Amino acid sequence: MFPDDALSDDKFLMGRLRLLQPARGYRAATDPVLLAAACPARAGESVLDLGCGAGAAGLCLAARVPGVVLAGLEVQADYADLARRNAQRNGMAMEVVTGDLAAMPKVLRREFDHVIANPPYYGAGGTPSPVAGRDRAVRVDTPIAAWVAAAGARLRPGGWLTMIFATPCLPEALAALAPKLGSASVLPLAPRIGRAPPRVILQARKGGRAAFRLLAPFTLHDGAAHDGDRENYTPGANAVLRMGGDLSAAFGRDGITPP
Amino acid sequence: MFPDDALSDDKFLMGRLRLLQPARGYRAATDPVLLAAACPARAGESVLDLGCGAGAAGLCLAARVPGVVLAGLEVQADYADLARRNAQRNGMAMEVVTGDLAAMPKVLRREFDHVIANPPYYGAGGTPSPVAGRDRAVRVDTPIAAWVAAAGARLRPGGWLTMIFATPCLPEALAALAPKLGSASVLPLAPRIGRAPPRVILQARKGGRAAFRLLAPFTLHDGAAHDGDRENYTPGANAVLRMGGDLSAAFGRDGITPP
Repeated sequence: MFPDDALSDDKFLMGRLRLLQPARGYRAATDPVLLAAACPARAGESVLDLGCGAGAAGLCLAARVPGVVLAGLEVQADYADLARRNAQRNGMAMEVVTGDLAAMPKVLRREFDHVIANPPYYGAGGTPSPVAGRDRAVRVDTPIAAWVAAAGARLRPGGWLTMIFATPCLPEALAALAPKLGSASVLPLAPRIGRAPPRVILQARKGGRAAFRLLAPFTLHDGAAHDGDRENYTPGANAVLRMGGDLSAAFGRDGITPP
Repeated sequence: MFPDDALSDDKFLMGRLRLLQPARGYRAATDPVLLAAACPARAGESVLDLGCGAGAAGLCLAARVPGVVLAGLEVQADYADLARRNAQRNGMAMEVVTGDLAAMPKVLRREFDHVIANPPYYGAGGTPSPVAGRDRAVRVDTPIAAWVAAAGARLRPGGWLTMIFATPCLPEALAALAPKLGSASVLPLAPRIGRAPPRVILQARKGGRAAFRLLAPFTLHDGAAHDGDRENYTPGANAVLRMGGDLSAAFGRDGITPP
């Protein structure tokens, strides 16, 4: 477990959510917020957060959609512990299980309406990029295809996978969808207009057969150059990252209609 | 062979190129021009246009890069004949071979510096979309993976494949790259800013090992709504589609540097 003096207490969604995170090592920033915003879950539906870390994505989702039934799987016991504490501190219920997605714990071997995942980053060509501290050895050894496979196994028919990851992983992720998952849509996340998207959100449906779709990029920052990221979000990014708005509509009606 | 009264004589690149095309059936529009613009060929390099039709892509490329050494493969003899006539009418050399890419004619079983291809469209989910007239039965039976495989077999090590196709085919095309092709980049072609790209250009390199890249969309039309496509090209689209400009730079330096 992390000692308290190794933790920082960070505000998300303009303070609607506060998360304890290790001051060093992996720290959630905008990715879990974007992921949570893109998940088309509704009140009463179950959501499994694969690799939930300190709980950022699942808890952001619960802040936007009260009534979702949250579960999380995290391979690192100290992060799982943080996720439990973070859920409690924010008055939210989240069943957090310590375990490896490649050997799914029995308690999570049930069907979910949604799976969300924010796998660790890989650098160019699938080689691990430097990840601070303890996370590296444990987390980057799981290929993106294993995340997709684990999600496919846990979704109910018609259920949705929503993942955010580094763009170089896209071909591997797409190749891993069949045969269980289909109806894939990719939302590129561009730092600015006209810039290549370093990350994408992939959404796919269990049993889906609709054509693959590549969507228009979601642009995070206004302006042509970096001049203080927090100050120049686009209106759309501001609505999602600060106001806790919905990004699932970007995927179109197919993305939010039950089967 | 098409009778002359079944042909129209169409201007490309503001009249720098004139192409005879069947007045009915498949007719080249902007796609082969975009494809030709994206191919990073240089003078003296060899280019194979797979499924060359009436020759639009290859001849547009020769108009932009004088000195490329053009060959084309076309399964429909009447289109292959048109391609030969079109090359001659424009004072360009193009070796056009009638044959099927799934059974490559011996005369083309050599190595090329570049392969370009504009496969016929598929509709959602990989089912053939309605294609006018005679083309349908012949052309849409070849899956996109077969186009990629034929290109991989014909490229020299370090040579480049450049393809334009409907976005729903992207996962299948990406999956077909390995093991011969890599360093894939995808350029989405958006009709307008904020609109999903119905088509993409895929570039990949024989033996390439660089990370997959998704680029910022290339936007064809200005304005939020359709108000006469030919009149409101973006400056970038105008440079490519009317002035015959280079689009290969959009793929970055990796796309144009010889190995």
